[in-house]
Amino acid sequence: MEPVILASGSPRRQEFFKLLGLPFSVISADIDESLCTHTDPEKLTLELAKRKVEKVLHDLNPPPPWIFGADTVVTINNKILGKPENRNEAAEMIRELSGCQHKVVTSMALYNGRKKIIDCRSASCTVLFSSLNESEINWYLDTNEWQGVAGGYRLQGLASCFISNISGSPSTVVGLPLNEFYVMLKDNGYPYLTVGRLDAEFPSDHLK
Amino acid sequence: MEPVILASGSPRRQEFFKLLGLPFSVISADIDESLCTHTDPEKLTLELAKRKVEKVLHDLNPPPPWIFGADTVVTINNKILGKPENRNEAAEMIRELSGCQHKVVTSMALYNGRKKIIDCRSASCTVLFSSLNESEINWYLDTNEWQGVAGGYRLQGLASCFISNISGSPSTVVGLPLNEFYVMLKDNGYPYLTVGRLDAEFPSDHLK
Repeated sequence: MEPVILASGSPRRQEFFKLLGLPFSVISADIDESLCTHTDPEKLTLELAKRKVEKVLHDLNPPPPWIFGADTVVTINNKILGKPENRNEAAEMIRELSGCQHKVVTSMALYNGRKKIIDCRSASCTVLFSSLNESEINWYLDTNEWQGVAGGYRLQGLASCFISNISGSPSTVVGLPLNEFYVMLKDNGYPYLTVGRLDAEFPSDHLK
Repeated sequence: MEPVILASGSPRRQEFFKLLGLPFSVISADIDESLCTHTDPEKLTLELAKRKVEKVLHDLNPPPPWIFGADTVVTINNKILGKPENRNEAAEMIRELSGCQHKVVTSMALYNGRKKIIDCRSASCTVLFSSLNESEINWYLDTNEWQGVAGGYRLQGLASCFISNISGSPSTVVGLPLNEFYVMLKDNGYPYLTVGRLDAEFPSDHLK
């Protein structure tokens, strides 16, 4: 079975690959995200996902048959929210999301070594947050779930107490749109349905 | 901290209680579900959730401060799908869901010992399945994810490869609408935000 190089250090994407039973190895692609100046979330994430794949492709000789990269952002009021750097930044993000609907965009790039192409696709999901008071915001920040995730919250964690509606796929919010990814693998001739499955689980966050 | 009696044997609801850090113990309420003849999914699940709580309330003396029960069904084409009894029944359900939108309804009942009332609430979520061919259906049935769940699929498992959209809360589909449950606890004066959190995770299915 052909392994896939996962050009992402995200533990959640790794857990999704395990859930899917895909044989894979991780080469976390360090790219300078500040070089991307798109203000459109689809264009920005597509560009970043593609750059991650190109970075790995550039570094490996001979090229592997499959390389996959992805990028996720949260967007609200024409702003793009990445990962908060500290608790104060996370607090600002959660205050902005509180009581409002926002959009999560995840883009994917798949290098297909047989066709020598990089197939790029996007998926999005809208998420509606309840109105939170300051004690709820502080309680949520205390969980530390805001660390390392775009928008400062995790749908698969305690943030689900405050999310009253989503429209799209939950996996898009977590960082890998599974339906779109499955179709992408199928369209590219990856023999996914013959993959042996491992004991695996939906990404979940062990609270620290 | 006041413990909650969870009147449900569902491992997924137990995992949600762990995620929430709620102190709880399980008393699986064995009720005769065939006595409920409602054809409306909200009425049916509300009645079943309430009966589970009443069963535990009847059996315990003195009554505990909090008892919680829930019930989930899948509904499509005016039919209610419960848990498939075998692979053939699961295959029929998946064929019916394939290419269509269906609704998942989860109802909850909470006994509040201070007020001596049972508060009952429902939540629903629509789910859109892609069109599956027979080899995809067989592949999915081979995962055994259909066992023990309403409608024969698990959103938190590999079925997410075939689910192109949901509208509502993913936790409603998994069996406990977390936002509605949080609001219900708050409305009933349960001091949830002061609960100490444990190391826990979003319900996930270890594939056998």
